[in-house]
Amino acid sequence: MAFRFRPVDASFFDLFATSATHLVGGAALLAEMLAEGADREDVARRMRDAEHAADETTHGIIRAVNSTFVTPFDREDIYALASGLDDVMDLMDEAVDFILLYEVKVLPPELSEQVDVLQQCADITAAAMPKLRSMKDSELSEYWIEINRLENLADKHHRRILASLFSGSFKALEVLKLKDIVTTLEQAVDAFESVANTVEQIAVKES
Amino acid sequence: MAFRFRPVDASFFDLFATSATHLVGGAALLAEMLAEGADREDVARRMRDAEHAADETTHGIIRAVNSTFVTPFDREDIYALASGLDDVMDLMDEAVDFILLYEVKVLPPELSEQVDVLQQCADITAAAMPKLRSMKDSELSEYWIEINRLENLADKHHRRILASLFSGSFKALEVLKLKDIVTTLEQAVDAFESVANTVEQIAVKES
Amino acid sequence: MAFRFRPVDASFFDLFATSATHLVGGAALLAEMLAEGADREDVARRMRDAEHAADETTHGIIRAVNSTFVTPFDREDIYALASGLDDVMDLMDEAVDFILLYEVKVLPPELSEQVDVLQQCADITAAAMPKLRSMKDSELSEYWIEINRLENLADKHHRRILASLFSGSFKALEVLKLKDIVTTLEQAVDAFESVANTVEQIAVKES
Repeated sequence: MAFRFRPVDASFFDLFATSATHLVGGAALLAEMLAEGADREDVARRMRDAEHAADETTHGIIRAVNSTFVTPFDREDIYALASGLDDVMDLMDEAVDFILLYEVKVLPPELSEQVDVLQQCADITAAAMPKLRSMKDSELSEYWIEINRLENLADKHHRRILASLFSGSFKALEVLKLKDIVTTLEQAVDAFESVANTVEQIAVKES
Repeated sequence: MAFRFRPVDASFFDLFATSATHLVGGAALLAEMLAEGADREDVARRMRDAEHAADETTHGIIRAVNSTFVTPFDREDIYALASGLDDVMDLMDEAVDFILLYEVKVLPPELSEQVDVLQQCADITAAAMPKLRSMKDSELSEYWIEINRLENLADKHHRRILASLFSGSFKALEVLKLKDIVTTLEQAVDAFESVANTVEQIAVKES
Repeated sequence: MAFRFRPVDASFFDLFATSATHLVGGAALLAEMLAEGADREDVARRMRDAEHAADETTHGIIRAVNSTFVTPFDREDIYALASGLDDVMDLMDEAVDFILLYEVKVLPPELSEQVDVLQQCADITAAAMPKLRSMKDSELSEYWIEINRLENLADKHHRRILASLFSGSFKALEVLKLKDIVTTLEQAVDAFESVANTVEQIAVKES
């Protein structure tokens, strides 16, 4: 157990916590992007900066894995966790990009519900990262259960949005644009679930 | 060789066989979904149940890997095989979902040919799983060759369906819907091929 | 160091070089496909042959990994590199297929810029493969930096093409077709980047 408190390990946990904190910021920017009257150019620029900062953290983790002899858990799990967190950021950045690029005039209100789910996912993921250190199974399993609940909710939203897109009230070109956006949002939620699965794998091995 | 017949190993082979059997059921439900006059709501509900049952089996395999000291082959190969089989089920479930959700009135007859390929893939995959135990190369290579033949056939169907979708006889919105469905069917066949590749990898290592 | 010059290792490096050379050929065929007055059927047929040849090389690498006791670097890295190179070829083949299949009449000129980026990626990847043998970090890092620059450029092109597709000057059905093509081209560039990342991982481990 003492192993876990050596400086080198601390830095891994700190980096994962930082990585998840970037996601909280990214989800907030996504919400801002959907708000009425948003300066989309400006939000997209800040999202790009946030994505670069997240990239830096990911590279920091990869560098640390490659230069550290003893890691707090398996190297491949560290890679998986780091790249899983990075995938979420990339997808949120992509959603913001699509909204800007496609110049979508009217965004269906259901999109905000989906972004709200993403914000909750980001919050509980950020809260879970520091618990990796103590690996308290009870606390981590609350996190998996909650992510799973949110993923099911997001799936229901996604299906309702798709049905509405194809209901005939949108033109084909508009459907094409909106479908890219909502699919990316759903993939971001899935990516959060995939992070939770990696954490579960790690916890099972450690227990 | 005697190793392979210990109870713990038997349970892995049984679980893989069960997992593949779920796919036979899933492919049958997909065929039912396409049949004229099908009660789509009802088929979709049964598909959802089948997908949950398949999930249970997958989790059973993952739990078994994590709690077993000696596994019949490499842990990462067991993960790959379990999640490969699970991917097929998810894709077949997704295809059924799209058909229900998009309320597609007319399904091009070529879709049935593709689902027929999926049923054949499921049948020979289910027949191959028990052979993992004896790892008879000759029997398994028949399976790979057949899956490869089916994947090539599915690819030809897929290209013909796409060409027909874009021939001008479908409206853009209809194309969008049908494209999601046929793409998912093709991905399901690809996922079967990926399972066969994993089996091949395992067999090569064991030989 | 002497290890690296044994025949068995040489064959790995030769196979990787061959694999990358297939990509140079594939990118050239893609450029030919876009040229005005191209015999698309004929180019597509040659692309199919090139893709099969690349497949052969990939299988050769996999067979070599499975039958060789000592490999020049980790088996999983060899797999990752071989399948990464193979992914690029598959995507270029898919782009050619879509162009033929969809019978797209007018291809936006920006597509050629994107294919030009792919040709540059193929050239420098082919030039980098022989350097894997000496693993000279300085030479390889030039390659990563250049691939990264090209990937950023491709991303800018991609976004400009998407914005133009959705500008209103294309019909929905035409947008659907072109979107498949441009997305595949962008994925091919991403696949080149992923190859470069694998090479970087290998180099870091070896250093």
